Amino acid sequence: MTINEAPATVSGVPALPSHGRLRPLGLHEVTLRPGFWQRRQDVNRSATLAHIEHWLDRAGWLGNFSSAPHERRGREFSDSEIYKLLEAMAWELGRTGDPGLEQRYRAIVRRVAAAQEPDGYLNTNFGRHGQQPRYSDLEWGHELYCYGHLIQAAVARARTFGTDELVEVAIRAADHVCDVFGPDGIASICGHPEIEPALVELYRVTGEARYLEQAKLFIDRRGHGRLPEIEFDRSYFQDDVPIRTADVLRGHAVRATYLSAGAVDVAIETGDGELLNAVTRQWRNTVARRTYLTGGMGSRHQDEAFGDDFVLPPDRAYSETCAGVGSIMLSWRLLLAHGDPRYADLIERTLFNVIATAPSGDGTRFFYTNTLHRRVLGSEPAADELAPRSDSTMRAPWFGVSCCPTNLARTFASLAAYLATSDDDGVQLHQYAAASLRIGLPQGTVALEIDTEYPADGRIAIRIVEAPDTPWTLTLRVPHWATGATLDGLAVPPGQARLRRRFAAGDTVVLDLAIRPRVTAADPRVDAVRGCVAVERGPVVYCAESVDLPPTVALDTLRVDPAVPLTDGDGGVVVSCRIVTPTDQEWPYAAPAPESSMKSLRVTLRPYHDWAERGPSTMRVWLPRS
Amino acid sequence: MTINEAPATVSGVPALPSHGRLRPLGLHEVTLRPGFWQRRQDVNRSATLAHIEHWLDRAGWLGNFSSAPHERRGREFSDSEIYKLLEAMAWELGRTGDPGLEQRYRAIVRRVAAAQEPDGYLNTNFGRHGQQPRYSDLEWGHELYCYGHLIQAAVARARTFGTDELVEVAIRAADHVCDVFGPDGIASICGHPEIEPALVELYRVTGEARYLEQAKLFIDRRGHGRLPEIEFDRSYFQDDVPIRTADVLRGHAVRATYLSAGAVDVAIETGDGELLNAVTRQWRNTVARRTYLTGGMGSRHQDEAFGDDFVLPPDRAYSETCAGVGSIMLSWRLLLAHGDPRYADLIERTLFNVIATAPSGDGTRFFYTNTLHRRVLGSEPAADELAPRSDSTMRAPWFGVSCCPTNLARTFASLAAYLATSDDDGVQLHQYAAASLRIGLPQGTVALEIDTEYPADGRIAIRIVEAPDTPWTLTLRVPHWATGATLDGLAVPPGQARLRRRFAAGDTVVLDLAIRPRVTAADPRVDAVRGCVAVERGPVVYCAESVDLPPTVALDTLRVDPAVPLTDGDGGVVVSCRIVTPTDQEWPYAAPAPESSMKSLRVTLRPYHDWAERGPSTMRVWLPRS
Repeated sequence: MTINEAPATVSGVPALPSHGRLRPLGLHEVTLRPGFWQRRQDVNRSATLAHIEHWLDRAGWLGNFSSAPHERRGREFSDSEIYKLLEAMAWELGRTGDPGLEQRYRAIVRRVAAAQEPDGYLNTNFGRHGQQPRYSDLEWGHELYCYGHLIQAAVARARTFGTDELVEVAIRAADHVCDVFGPDGIASICGHPEIEPALVELYRVTGEARYLEQAKLFIDRRGHGRLPEIEFDRSYFQDDVPIRTADVLRGHAVRATYLSAGAVDVAIETGDGELLNAVTRQWRNTVARRTYLTGGMGSRHQDEAFGDDFVLPPDRAYSETCAGVGSIMLSWRLLLAHGDPRYADLIERTLFNVIATAPSGDGTRFFYTNTLHRRVLGSEPAADELAPRSDSTMRAPWFGVSCCPTNLARTFASLAAYLATSDDDGVQLHQYAAASLRIGLPQGTVALEIDTEYPADGRIAIRIVEAPDTPWTLTLRVPHWATGATLDGLAVPPGQARLRRRFAAGDTVVLDLAIRPRVTAADPRVDAVRGCVAVERGPVVYCAESVDLPPTVALDTLRVDPAVPLTDGDGGVVVSCRIVTPTDQEWPYAAPAPESSMKSLRVTLRPYHDWAERGPSTMRVWLPRS
Repeated sequence: MTINEAPATVSGVPALPSHGRLRPLGLHEVTLRPGFWQRRQDVNRSATLAHIEHWLDRAGWLGNFSSAPHERRGREFSDSEIYKLLEAMAWELGRTGDPGLEQRYRAIVRRVAAAQEPDGYLNTNFGRHGQQPRYSDLEWGHELYCYGHLIQAAVARARTFGTDELVEVAIRAADHVCDVFGPDGIASICGHPEIEPALVELYRVTGEARYLEQAKLFIDRRGHGRLPEIEFDRSYFQDDVPIRTADVLRGHAVRATYLSAGAVDVAIETGDGELLNAVTRQWRNTVARRTYLTGGMGSRHQDEAFGDDFVLPPDRAYSETCAGVGSIMLSWRLLLAHGDPRYADLIERTLFNVIATAPSGDGTRFFYTNTLHRRVLGSEPAADELAPRSDSTMRAPWFGVSCCPTNLARTFASLAAYLATSDDDGVQLHQYAAASLRIGLPQGTVALEIDTEYPADGRIAIRIVEAPDTPWTLTLRVPHWATGATLDGLAVPPGQARLRRRFAAGDTVVLDLAIRPRVTAADPRVDAVRGCVAVERGPVVYCAESVDLPPTVALDTLRVDPAVPLTDGDGGVVVSCRIVTPTDQEWPYAAPAPESSMKSLRVTLRPYHDWAERGPSTMRVWLPRS
């Protein structure tokens, strides 16, 4: 089946389940206006996409599609970076239609298409002369993973443009996957999930049930030890326990979140409540026990993996940028399925503290990992070298494993789609940003203008530009941290505030989330931050950075005095600290003794997402209490 | 040169510097008697050696010496395990002369010798048909590392027996190394140090200066980026900074300690004070900032490496058993060079809390890593499978990377040599164990019997069995933790207590180290154990283990009440705890709130080295304070 037989809805929607509590909106329905997120989306468009293209070319990963097999460069999964760039371009073209970008997009698609084999196989790392045979290394080879990103790019294109050469390539690849890995084919799975959500999305675009069945097959096969044992344990690629019976996410955090997103997609399209419940349970336990204050996931460098419950060391936080993307993919699907605002709470936290943290302000350097405690001054990574991925000293232009920049690019390009949803009764606002919305409801068109300086300020003004003549419901998420919030002056508790009435053009609804700095402590089972507090302000986690301290004061000598209230000021949050003087000992263990502190200091904390932008520094999110 | 031209001193000494503050003693000078360490040495002899031989055979690593190249099994460094077993056997034979063991030793030596190439090259993983060429992968190939262990085994044999086939094999290999890597040869180094101390020791055995020069060349070459950059960074194999200029140990902890031991050896034999000072400085900073309470080294799983200063998470402690062996090798050399008791303090700590912890009581299961906090019940590793190395759930019979069992075996077999030293003026006791000593001093023979239940009890009685007619000095280490110690009833402070007089046969000197349980806290810069205390008793670190708790009490809910004194009792140390009830939350971060605790509980802590011997359990060394 081709897309022309079952035309895609050019909906501009990143993930489009056929049913669920809430309906996603497309990029033509929600548009960002100047503010926190539009600034980042602009930088993504104007700087990051070209930066990525430059590096894909320079590193030779783009060239792999036309070069000889023995000249192939980069890691086994490098094809996927080209596909994620194409996906980002597709969303961006759907929003802006920039002709120059369209040309660049088409040129890359042509190179990709030319590398596809007649039977649909497409991977520059396997199967050609002198290379390993196709599918000879399912645990590490990433072939199906690469198809997944190829298909996701094609889905983006189909949903923003319609069919094109990339969509045709992806359909041929998907057909090939079904041929080779179908019920009578290779009864195994890919070491890195991603094909699963991609196939369901392609099913949603094309209506081709075979893709859904194949995705379901991959979901059902996983967890039964189809992949060989590895030193990291099979939990690394979630092949240890079937998805239906697992209680918590584990193993490689990007793999775990991508897989879970695919499992939700399969559950929704097949009406599989057991599977949906299983993933929902895993999300709940993961958020309650295995997630950083920033929303970051993954606390182990060794295998880029979730740790045991409550193992969340700030100084060895992995919190991979891509795991943030994966977490949003998963939470978004659960939000659409269940309508529960806590999914949007986690998305917000992850957006402001992982996704906004990873890129530099100019969009050309990136964190791969997002540590919560940097102890030692680092140095600026070279502008012309591939950086090691796990060093969080400063943002780097590119990595030997460079999944994060392209993952950010596709997320920023499609970001507006995660702000709001609709249902038969009205509109739900989940994320707050200056934006324009124009949504068709059964009652008629609703158009809204949202004005806000969020997250700097908690006031969100929603002006009704156009509304049906009949009552409908405007639902506003009140974040879990927003105590003291008001809606049109009336107190509203955390959760959801609903206004059901007939709105008139010109009406304005004002939600005030009463943003002020607050002190946060961790569950005492998070041993690594015992005796520490963090400072948050609205959805934003703050941090102390050495560049804001007097040169004589070491960051690790600060002790927060919790008796002194936090205040806004000096471009951040001002916190009162005492300064202790650690004594260097030959042996660092001795009978307990109180810490001595002589001086006090008022320290300005700044948003964590802005750290490491002012030269090498040390940084802490969690500060010991005095 | 062969050993027959420059006969080895059959001294029984593991490391024999030509000069230094203290002279090491040999296995014929110091003999363990029944007690803590003799029990372990007996188990090593009677169970561990055969266990190792069984697994080396079963895993095919011994067979590699006679099998075809394409049939080779195991990792690239597996030859070294055979050599470490031979070293352990050689020390054991030096002590006991067991004819059955001698036969087994000789049989293995024959297999090894048969695999040596005419030019001295010997490695089952490289250079044969279908294998990678010799020295084509210096960073990961471990060829020089394997020679290092081969040579160490031969040195043990030479020092306990004299020349034999193994010694001849090792000399041919060493000559080959000098030919290939000498001043005009391959100007590089091995990714894993070990050849360095081995070549110096072979120089000490044979007098062949070329081996010392080659060791010095390897030491001087390292730190200049001769090895390629890797994702872990060149600090992984200490090729980032020259040894002379580095300030602290870093990178892979076993590599770092072996290299440092070799650097001390080179410094001593070449009179290189700058090099000795550099290693001494690195030891000091490493002990002050990068060492666990147990003496364990290495806090990162990812690269089995030291972390930044004060990054010492108990729950992700790596603390590799082999790094404990390497640490002892290093500290012992510095003790001989400088005579400072703090080196013996660290050796003692490492012996009782790493080396004694790693093997099971029956000597057939081992920890590869030695965590200080086990959060989740594990399961008994299968008796017939290779275990993953980094899981600390329970001791395993063998590992895919199985360096630790053989390293323990050679350490236990030669353990008596680390108890005491001599100098022109007398005898120094560094470690306390029931033992007999017979030492030739310039003044005449000194024979001592040491009676003690140490570390269960702090009383150490030293009976003079034979002594010269002139005064000499008996020096006793008073451990850094031993406040309240007495020598013949007189108070002695931590450090060294010296008795200089004419001793008569029958005299008894009693050192009482006043062992009682004590509470220990960490430098506040060790963020991972903020607000926690540990319990020690003498040199032994204690821990709480779930099998000692009522089934309804979770280990992580204990809060030590520091106001209640610790008491000896119930086979351990009894500590008073309150029990808190953590509240499960959807999101584990909230405004600070005091922990509520209802119940108190007296908890028996037991020696950390005995943990995980009573079935799956959870365990903590560091306990939060109430």
